[in-house]
Amino acid sequence: MSSSYAPPSRKQNPHLPFGDQRTAPWYGKDILSVRQFNRNDLEYVFGVAHEMREMVERVGTFDLLKGKILANVFYEPSTRTSASFTAAMERLGGSVIPINEVRYSSVAKGESLPDTIRSLECYADVVVLRHPEVGASALAADYAKKPIINAGDGVGEHPTQALLDLFTISEELGRIDGLTVTMVGDLKHGRTVHSLARLLSLFQVRLNYVAPDILRMPKEIIGELEERAMPQEEHELLDKVIGDTDVLYVTRVQKERFQDPANYDKVQGSYTITSDVMKRAKDRMIVMHPLPRVGEISMDVDPDPRAAYFRQMEYGLYVRMALLAMVLGKA
Amino acid sequence: MSSSYAPPSRKQNPHLPFGDQRTAPWYGKDILSVRQFNRNDLEYVFGVAHEMREMVERVGTFDLLKGKILANVFYEPSTRTSASFTAAMERLGGSVIPINEVRYSSVAKGESLPDTIRSLECYADVVVLRHPEVGASALAADYAKKPIINAGDGVGEHPTQALLDLFTISEELGRIDGLTVTMVGDLKHGRTVHSLARLLSLFQVRLNYVAPDILRMPKEIIGELEERAMPQEEHELLDKVIGDTDVLYVTRVQKERFQDPANYDKVQGSYTITSDVMKRAKDRMIVMHPLPRVGEISMDVDPDPRAAYFRQMEYGLYVRMALLAMVLGKA
Amino acid sequence: MSSSYAPPSRKQNPHLPFGDQRTAPWYGKDILSVRQFNRNDLEYVFGVAHEMREMVERVGTFDLLKGKILANVFYEPSTRTSASFTAAMERLGGSVIPINEVRYSSVAKGESLPDTIRSLECYADVVVLRHPEVGASALAADYAKKPIINAGDGVGEHPTQALLDLFTISEELGRIDGLTVTMVGDLKHGRTVHSLARLLSLFQVRLNYVAPDILRMPKEIIGELEERAMPQEEHELLDKVIGDTDVLYVTRVQKERFQDPANYDKVQGSYTITSDVMKRAKDRMIVMHPLPRVGEISMDVDPDPRAAYFRQMEYGLYVRMALLAMVLGKA
Repeated sequence: MSSSYAPPSRKQNPHLPFGDQRTAPWYGKDILSVRQFNRNDLEYVFGVAHEMREMVERVGTFDLLKGKILANVFYEPSTRTSASFTAAMERLGGSVIPINEVRYSSVAKGESLPDTIRSLECYADVVVLRHPEVGASALAADYAKKPIINAGDGVGEHPTQALLDLFTISEELGRIDGLTVTMVGDLKHGRTVHSLARLLSLFQVRLNYVAPDILRMPKEIIGELEERAMPQEEHELLDKVIGDTDVLYVTRVQKERFQDPANYDKVQGSYTITSDVMKRAKDRMIVMHPLPRVGEISMDVDPDPRAAYFRQMEYGLYVRMALLAMVLGKA
Repeated sequence: MSSSYAPPSRKQNPHLPFGDQRTAPWYGKDILSVRQFNRNDLEYVFGVAHEMREMVERVGTFDLLKGKILANVFYEPSTRTSASFTAAMERLGGSVIPINEVRYSSVAKGESLPDTIRSLECYADVVVLRHPEVGASALAADYAKKPIINAGDGVGEHPTQALLDLFTISEELGRIDGLTVTMVGDLKHGRTVHSLARLLSLFQVRLNYVAPDILRMPKEIIGELEERAMPQEEHELLDKVIGDTDVLYVTRVQKERFQDPANYDKVQGSYTITSDVMKRAKDRMIVMHPLPRVGEISMDVDPDPRAAYFRQMEYGLYVRMALLAMVLGKA
Repeated sequence: MSSSYAPPSRKQNPHLPFGDQRTAPWYGKDILSVRQFNRNDLEYVFGVAHEMREMVERVGTFDLLKGKILANVFYEPSTRTSASFTAAMERLGGSVIPINEVRYSSVAKGESLPDTIRSLECYADVVVLRHPEVGASALAADYAKKPIINAGDGVGEHPTQALLDLFTISEELGRIDGLTVTMVGDLKHGRTVHSLARLLSLFQVRLNYVAPDILRMPKEIIGELEERAMPQEEHELLDKVIGDTDVLYVTRVQKERFQDPANYDKVQGSYTITSDVMKRAKDRMIVMHPLPRVGEISMDVDPDPRAAYFRQMEYGLYVRMALLAMVLGKA
């Protein structure tokens, strides 16, 4: 479902009196789900994000959102995501109201999410929301006048993570079409890999899933992508596909997922990326990880120029800058 | 007790070298209690707050306090109040030092409030203080060189809440004199309604108190207002007065206040505002609530244009902007 | 070990394209330990800090670091230090990403400090780090591309505290050479007095140590300063030296340090500074304390102009402004 060519947004920001801003396609929109984005939308976001990257590299900060205020509302802590949105707003000259202790105050007194959001949005021009429950951002958006950006709602969506993953591929390899993307690790529980797989289905990409049997990519997702005629292969070992891989997307295999710890010990070595594994990879490819990692990529891979996982954080900054500018009518 | 025509403040802010600022009547003053304000003072505050509203609606943010720093010192969490002061400072171009974890650090080591305040004020131009103990702000103000704004001290005062309540009435209905204000719910424990009643006694207003017997407005307050010849009536049910009410100020009736839960069940329906209740109210009137609400105004009232409780939050922003500008000599 | 004349820093900040900044001696440097500073370095820092003081006193805030972002990463709470760095950055027109809940999130999931720092530095131009473990800042600096400023690592170093202590002496008394500095209280456990003693050994200063027997200055430090031919004397009582003291540096004697509480009761009066004690002190001298104090300086000393402990906080602001400007190539 595309939102970029939808009729003028129901959301009006009284602080942007300039006519042309009100006609900007993303002005006043909510960012709730990767399903909002079609291929044209993604290309637009990445175009803006690329401009943000160039501006940051050239001048560090600029005043595109000077005078705008972001309410950064986190019902559960997420240091990285919170810091990334804060930095994005500050690098655009805007200000941030950090709201990290929601759980201690009004909410603890039984207040509903719609009430909290309608109170807090009074102070801000845009609201970023992190919440442990699926659908929280959509609920908030139903009530809010200001745009809502979903910064993760439970096992639901975390659209800016998926967008930054895709933007990383686009920036690092110069294209998305024609690539072979291999996802490795726990493909069953990770909303990250689910959202990325869905986004990739908008492009001409081959997907490999490498996971132990109990942590395979869910059938619903494989089925969904099959309908779009996406080439997908499942493997239990990385060996067979590492040599053809352009993007190796690594996720953590948690010991607690295994009923019998012996089974974990048996498989875990197969899903750990070391500099030995990297010897069998292409010269031009990238290794990604949503971070934090805990052992599934060994530190001896860090100096490898193909290790893109820290740069990935930085691309997240540019994507979030782009989205903030877009929903505030400034891009 | 008026403070606006007092002799030049003992508090000097070295960062404001311009002579005229030092003669501004509120420059360097503390905001500790609603008792500081006479009717002239209130009209002055509301005049500045109204200008703030117009500026925010027109341009969003402006640089009146650029370069000024607010230390937002919260000994107990209060998301809304903290966010409101943060937004107020940022909308005026100033910066905020958020200090939310006072309890975890020096204070936990036994440091006194005067020492904490004298340390933290070194970094700031103005200090907002929230503290669980009555009189904390006055104590802090005795020691501080920079202006202190009381953001709530236990069951004591929360002057900016009372000011925003009154400002809401003034902005929404265009006047205060001549109105009938009906307070409903728990009138015994709420410092909000106590402070508002005191402020209203500076105007020509009729007050109705609607509460179950065990939660009636305290005799001291009724007595205090009687001395000022204020018309006051007590009722157990809303029916009799809803039709004449210009301002319906709703507060929460907490189940825990009742020794016998059956008594709570008996009364609570009488103190819940529904769209049915609103049918019997005037066409031009407003419903207010200090928020958070938990059921005492049903959500079907929210779309009613008379429902002013979310707009009330926004008026709080303007009042706090006004106070910050005033004590920093910029209004 | 001096770092100021070292070869160009390995750290490059891509956001500062101007050639001359890259040749600024402190540009891109880490501030990890007082051992980095020789006497020339200190004079340079204090010269910049003094300029910062004059600018703040004259105009409050200025835009030297406009567009720069500080990641203020605190693994343990320290209200004062965190607030001081925040204020320092904001008074220079820069922005701050406050990261106070590291322990609740990625770190709780087992992430290593190098990974956390490499993620967070993506968003910032400079990182301030407070961590409970000795050597944490040096470890972080090994991995980070952006400059790291140590804001305290366990019982290890807290270099900005030591620098502000020395700067306080320099500003208040106009010189350091020729002074008699008396340290009183718990000289065994305080990293503050250890670092200050080391820094003072770069000057022509006489040191008196006044402490109960079980809390004497450690032999290693006395030995280290003896090698530099520094005049040092140990005393059990303050009486003998108070009359000759230019700087009285007071630290807290904690009851818990004494196995037999009776021993604490016996000595503690000797290490409490009262206005009576101050009668025997010089007319021109200063009393310092790292704060928080809990009784070791009685409140009747506060109005004494020689009581410099709250001004000391303010000097900390100027020193931190200086260091931020220096490592960002702007001083």
